[in-house]
Amino acid sequence: MTIVLGANQYGKAETRLVRVDRGGPQHELRDLTVTVALAGDLAATHLTGDNSQVLPTDSQKNTVYAFARQHGVDQIEDFGLVLAQHFVSSQAAIDRARVDLSEHTWHRLGPHSFQRAGSETRTATVTVTGSAAVVESGLTGLVLLNSTDSEFTGYVRDRYTTLPQTRDRILATEVNARWRHRGVDGEWAGSYAGVRAALVAAFIETYSLSLQQTLYAMGRRVLQDRPEIAEVHLALPNKHHLPVDLTPFGLDNPGEVFVATDRPYGLIEGTVTRAEPGAR
Amino acid sequence: MTIVLGANQYGKAETRLVRVDRGGPQHELRDLTVTVALAGDLAATHLTGDNSQVLPTDSQKNTVYAFARQHGVDQIEDFGLVLAQHFVSSQAAIDRARVDLSEHTWHRLGPHSFQRAGSETRTATVTVTGSAAVVESGLTGLVLLNSTDSEFTGYVRDRYTTLPQTRDRILATEVNARWRHRGVDGEWAGSYAGVRAALVAAFIETYSLSLQQTLYAMGRRVLQDRPEIAEVHLALPNKHHLPVDLTPFGLDNPGEVFVATDRPYGLIEGTVTRAEPGAR
Amino acid sequence: MTIVLGANQYGKAETRLVRVDRGGPQHELRDLTVTVALAGDLAATHLTGDNSQVLPTDSQKNTVYAFARQHGVDQIEDFGLVLAQHFVSSQAAIDRARVDLSEHTWHRLGPHSFQRAGSETRTATVTVTGSAAVVESGLTGLVLLNSTDSEFTGYVRDRYTTLPQTRDRILATEVNARWRHRGVDGEWAGSYAGVRAALVAAFIETYSLSLQQTLYAMGRRVLQDRPEIAEVHLALPNKHHLPVDLTPFGLDNPGEVFVATDRPYGLIEGTVTRAEPGAR
Amino acid sequence: MTIVLGANQYGKAETRLVRVDRGGPQHELRDLTVTVALAGDLAATHLTGDNSQVLPTDSQKNTVYAFARQHGVDQIEDFGLVLAQHFVSSQAAIDRARVDLSEHTWHRLGPHSFQRAGSETRTATVTVTGSAAVVESGLTGLVLLNSTDSEFTGYVRDRYTTLPQTRDRILATEVNARWRHRGVDGEWAGSYAGVRAALVAAFIETYSLSLQQTLYAMGRRVLQDRPEIAEVHLALPNKHHLPVDLTPFGLDNPGEVFVATDRPYGLIEGTVTRAEPGAR
Repeated sequence: MTIVLGANQYGKAETRLVRVDRGGPQHELRDLTVTVALAGDLAATHLTGDNSQVLPTDSQKNTVYAFARQHGVDQIEDFGLVLAQHFVSSQAAIDRARVDLSEHTWHRLGPHSFQRAGSETRTATVTVTGSAAVVESGLTGLVLLNSTDSEFTGYVRDRYTTLPQTRDRILATEVNARWRHRGVDGEWAGSYAGVRAALVAAFIETYSLSLQQTLYAMGRRVLQDRPEIAEVHLALPNKHHLPVDLTPFGLDNPGEVFVATDRPYGLIEGTVTRAEPGAR
Repeated sequence: MTIVLGANQYGKAETRLVRVDRGGPQHELRDLTVTVALAGDLAATHLTGDNSQVLPTDSQKNTVYAFARQHGVDQIEDFGLVLAQHFVSSQAAIDRARVDLSEHTWHRLGPHSFQRAGSETRTATVTVTGSAAVVESGLTGLVLLNSTDSEFTGYVRDRYTTLPQTRDRILATEVNARWRHRGVDGEWAGSYAGVRAALVAAFIETYSLSLQQTLYAMGRRVLQDRPEIAEVHLALPNKHHLPVDLTPFGLDNPGEVFVATDRPYGLIEGTVTRAEPGAR
Repeated sequence: MTIVLGANQYGKAETRLVRVDRGGPQHELRDLTVTVALAGDLAATHLTGDNSQVLPTDSQKNTVYAFARQHGVDQIEDFGLVLAQHFVSSQAAIDRARVDLSEHTWHRLGPHSFQRAGSETRTATVTVTGSAAVVESGLTGLVLLNSTDSEFTGYVRDRYTTLPQTRDRILATEVNARWRHRGVDGEWAGSYAGVRAALVAAFIETYSLSLQQTLYAMGRRVLQDRPEIAEVHLALPNKHHLPVDLTPFGLDNPGEVFVATDRPYGLIEGTVTRAEPGAR
Repeated sequence: MTIVLGANQYGKAETRLVRVDRGGPQHELRDLTVTVALAGDLAATHLTGDNSQVLPTDSQKNTVYAFARQHGVDQIEDFGLVLAQHFVSSQAAIDRARVDLSEHTWHRLGPHSFQRAGSETRTATVTVTGSAAVVESGLTGLVLLNSTDSEFTGYVRDRYTTLPQTRDRILATEVNARWRHRGVDGEWAGSYAGVRAALVAAFIETYSLSLQQTLYAMGRRVLQDRPEIAEVHLALPNKHHLPVDLTPFGLDNPGEVFVATDRPYGLIEGTVTRAEPGAR
């Protein structure tokens, strides 16, 4: 039985890029973290240390900065496409480039003044393989909470079940979403705003019998509202808020005082997709 | 030479409290992290393990939750005062209680739906000693950036100085501010909004020759605008954004492409205060 | 085109379990973080909120603690197997259970005294599907550094390449490794120690022409030394240590003074596997 | 009432320095994070942006790297002293320099191979004011646990007390210690090893009636064993390990299964010092 090299990739991770566009009456600011991963015929460097097919990760970082000047940075999906296509087309050994981009949002405070918007991050993953390209957009760090209209009842009870059923609980999650576009020439900004609005609306409007139900409602709403999206993946931690038992202190607690817990947490993950006609 | 116990304190740190007020037509949400520290005649537990003067930190945590029900949670300064006064007045051995509170902000999305506002956190530290009380308010995690109107020139040059002077740079910082109130019966919400606005306005409006100058302008603005504040302390990391040298790629970089660095960073700290009349 | 539920799973993440075995002359300590993920016929809760097939994540957490008492906790692979098999065999709707376990190591300081060993963590992932089971072991947080015997030369140069070739550099990485066992009845402790030793030995002993070469050498060494292992996956960040240019200060720097950078970093990922005889 | 500048300081924080000493038959590695803070006559830059007394933080960073080459890096206390003295003696406006140093430990694996030792970090803070200097050493990230020989009983019970007394609990803490030396010409390496050993021995050997008692025993042991130390400050989080109630599952729990909690935690802080003869 022989030992062989399997799947592999390499690249520069977490290049931090801030671009200021000074062209208009007020500055525009883009703040990105960019990660590149390249795959292809890379056996030589693994097996013998022959680097003649290896573009240094340092050059990849330089490319990110140079492209920011040459091409500008508007929508992260487009910036990822131009980067990924460049690596595949210019490097003979590379047959797949994946670029992950995170955009850190800033609010405008003045013509050249900005405030960082917080933990919510817009993301994109662009994968180029030969002539094909796939664009996924996403977001992380969006923390949502409903203080009522959430139940959890009717579940399986086994010998390790002690959880009391509840008709009224806090439902809180940090949305980690990723959605695949049908094409690669989207109107990215509008699409992002539309998907984000659909996710938030479905979270708010769903009377929730389980976080799974809310997850599915969120994914379905995106697909209903946004024809350009083929599939949505959601990972939703259930950020438990436990009512505090105040009876030892002679007090009731009518859904008012909660402890917000860090760990453990539920983790609900699911994909909502379009069924192809005729597929089973 | 004898070995003795010096200054000491103890308490429960980082109690996580979420309170929902369901009294009105729409829910109100408060999300706090509360830390208690008590000091006083605590030698016995240190020297012999005699705990007869020690209120368990678990009881301190319980008190936070019970008081949230009994007194409600509106302004964190008031909640801190009632907690600190309780510990000093009810515990014979305790002559100083300090309560640190962080409020995590949520934006309203609906009658009972909320979105976590990000990393910016409102803080308060309340210290009660016998009958006296001191209230400090503050904020952390407010990240501000000016993309121009910042210089750094005319500084000391020694044999280890290589930094080029610049007439135009990005100035970015994460504001960590703390301000002491003259009294303990403030109109806390309005005061907080006013101080925050003064800090932001001074950051934006100051043509900056150094981050120290901006710091002083921020503190001075607070004291000018808010007569209820006695003193402001600011810790401002200089979050360096370095222009990328694109000349190896045949490109110029007219203040457009920057690398945002994590470490090292400058750290500028200062206090701005009111001079007492007649003091020197 | 219809909207449908795709792949999904749910479970309790990051249950923190510490178990003390008091049976012998000295205490034994195990410190685990356990994450459970269940998949199967879970459409109902997603589509209608019908939870009749949903075992609460709270019950999963309880199971972790109860099993720690009933079965003890010795090797994490065995503890994961008993948990995963329990969920699949006891829950009609569940046809796949995956249990991720991280073990935080403590050094013994005395019969019942311990010191946390640091950031290095032993991991296992156990996946049970019907009657089949797959066990992967791994480690994270092992940071290794060679201060010489590392080169990087002969690489592709494109118009964005500025990196100078080097015949002597620091090579540092944080090993993130995962290896799949051929069976499910391993001698886990000895296997872990053997794999870890092989990884470290190969890192130290390889004169490195690229981190890819070192990665492959590490994986190959594991497969050479440990017949029970089928495949190794390694993710190795290249933690860059850049020599500081001291010439402005009239000083040379013969490989002596470095800045350790946080971001960006190279990320080298690869799998080393056994080729089946006759397979191509 | 006039607005004035109060206490202030500035400097470069978290300069990351790795130094390799290649002089002997095997390499020596030092890995430091260095933070400089300078204070003095800095009013001009705050009030008018006149930087003629401001040594750039960039130059401070350069000085750290240049001094690592010129003076070498052996004990962090000595490296801090030479840096702090340099800033005070070379900068007319500066009358106080404080240098904070953290040393990240590596274990030797070979002549030029190393493994990062984990989260435990040796620290030093050197403060030079004119001709005077104060050296404090310390450590952080040392996590210790006793699985028995710890009680907590006899404490104050108020109306918010629900904690059951216990004659046998886990006692775990992360030691954050800082100790002041009487002089500035210590034998730093031996002193550090001695203090660390005293802290660990006292933690292990103390039958603990409260974490306060353990804290005092740790500080006293240092002062008893190490005549060169004037004072010890300890901040000890009480990392709670709560026994899990297994009775709902028909199981007992004789001090065997615990949940390790993150928040909240107790925080016990205290100073142990030498009383001057004749002082009261």
